[in-house]
Amino acid sequence: MDDEVFEHEIRVGWGDCDPARIAYTGKLPMFALEAIEAWWEHHLGGGWYQMELDRGVGTPFVHMSLNFRSPVTPRHRLKCKVRPTRLGETSIAFRVEAFQDGTLSFEGDFVCVFAVPIELKKTPPPDDIRAIVEERIRAGANAAAGQ
Amino acid sequence: MDDEVFEHEIRVGWGDCDPARIAYTGKLPMFALEAIEAWWEHHLGGGWYQMELDRGVGTPFVHMSLNFRSPVTPRHRLKCKVRPTRLGETSIAFRVEAFQDGTLSFEGDFVCVFAVPIELKKTPPPDDIRAIVEERIRAGANAAAGQ
Amino acid sequence: MDDEVFEHEIRVGWGDCDPARIAYTGKLPMFALEAIEAWWEHHLGGGWYQMELDRGVGTPFVHMSLNFRSPVTPRHRLKCKVRPTRLGETSIAFRVEAFQDGTLSFEGDFVCVFAVPIELKKTPPPDDIRAIVEERIRAGANAAAGQ
Amino acid sequence: MDDEVFEHEIRVGWGDCDPARIAYTGKLPMFALEAIEAWWEHHLGGGWYQMELDRGVGTPFVHMSLNFRSPVTPRHRLKCKVRPTRLGETSIAFRVEAFQDGTLSFEGDFVCVFAVPIELKKTPPPDDIRAIVEERIRAGANAAAGQ
Repeated sequence: MDDEVFEHEIRVGWGDCDPARIAYTGKLPMFALEAIEAWWEHHLGGGWYQMELDRGVGTPFVHMSLNFRSPVTPRHRLKCKVRPTRLGETSIAFRVEAFQDGTLSFEGDFVCVFAVPIELKKTPPPDDIRAIVEERIRAGANAAAGQ
Repeated sequence: MDDEVFEHEIRVGWGDCDPARIAYTGKLPMFALEAIEAWWEHHLGGGWYQMELDRGVGTPFVHMSLNFRSPVTPRHRLKCKVRPTRLGETSIAFRVEAFQDGTLSFEGDFVCVFAVPIELKKTPPPDDIRAIVEERIRAGANAAAGQ
Repeated sequence: MDDEVFEHEIRVGWGDCDPARIAYTGKLPMFALEAIEAWWEHHLGGGWYQMELDRGVGTPFVHMSLNFRSPVTPRHRLKCKVRPTRLGETSIAFRVEAFQDGTLSFEGDFVCVFAVPIELKKTPPPDDIRAIVEERIRAGANAAAGQ
Repeated sequence: MDDEVFEHEIRVGWGDCDPARIAYTGKLPMFALEAIEAWWEHHLGGGWYQMELDRGVGTPFVHMSLNFRSPVTPRHRLKCKVRPTRLGETSIAFRVEAFQDGTLSFEGDFVCVFAVPIELKKTPPPDDIRAIVEERIRAGANAAAGQ
């Protein structure tokens, strides 16, 4: 059984940093979003682009909350652990924890709704997506419980 | 007495939007940060660049939390209302409410600490900054109380 | 007669700058593009978003060339002068010159084609757009000739 | 002998795309810059951040010129081939060719100067950097000549 939490690696660069010599605050949500998109890509074979254009599944964000624990710099790759934490009738929550060199850089909670593209009307997710997400939530709970 | 809440206007463009034809989620925190920086600029005569390089006052973010209420598009300017909501010994909290055409697009709470540049060691803010922020918090509270 | 070259003002911020304390190179083409979109908005009443979605006129870029003359910082607003320089059967060229505090920061030449949205098939521009662009090219030539 | 041209792979995402469903023009120079920084990182063990902060070697851009050949989308990774093409007394030129699924997406020429950080005064590069760049220019010329 694969209880491993999905990890997405980001190359932090010079252009991500501000004159304080750390990644600009505005880039950190961008990194978290990239990691969530990579989670979808890993599990479905395509990211938000393919989900929206090929499958008609949009997942607009309705909430994000982040705590910044330690500055991000280009000295190490940023390793973003991503896992879904909750699946509602038409919503999904993700947790992202980002590390550099073993230290927690930031952590965040994100909520999306499933929605019809362009119209943005809420809709339940397709069954295969529901199945994948539920399995990953269970795996995450198991991993957290040390099983 | 000026109880008006500071407002910063942002031109949302084509490049801010994704294939769902709305501003990309990752841009929304960027917009809020720009509005907070504009608040500093309005009240101090310079933004984060001048605060950090000329005055030795850094204000790294430790938290942000946003709720996305209505999609942002290039059809209207984004009007961001910004006000400080709390000033601690070494921290400051801001509230940002962003509107397009009279509709709330998103709202967010942000917490920064005052810190020595580069070292990022926490430090109390200079007295003039403390005075400005306290006055604006009072004005905001008065405005909220309808006075 | 309005021979004035269109000018678009950009607020350069902390987040635009890198650890060298100047605007990151990658942001400079972004600024030029924003200025070109603002040119369209000024002359047509809507930017690329409205042109593409409401009028069915796309203008993808096929070329850009920039020379960076002087570093851009948040100390001054960036004033971007934009003018069309050439209109072909299905293409349009723009020149952008960006100044801070009277000094040339960068200059660039940009070429777009008129194209059907999504398909990206080249197509001549609508007559009203052709008329507006031709008038602005003439005005620019006159201004350059000191008339 | 390693005559292979350095290649840097970029994950193009949803947030890189605009409503035309292709990567926004302003992102393409960003991708090329990331690829050039990755070239430095590969050859020196650190990117622009380490070069500037640890070694005192800045390389600000003075010119860029790009031709956009085919739209970039999230359907394939963007493979950026990077090679230095010229080394002057205080300048260096790079060529970047970016491909998706075997098709040329865009190509560009970039010129940087070696400069003292913050002051931005031109200066010749350190000997080890000169040696690495000269070797890579020779390798590129050999590769081009089919040797």
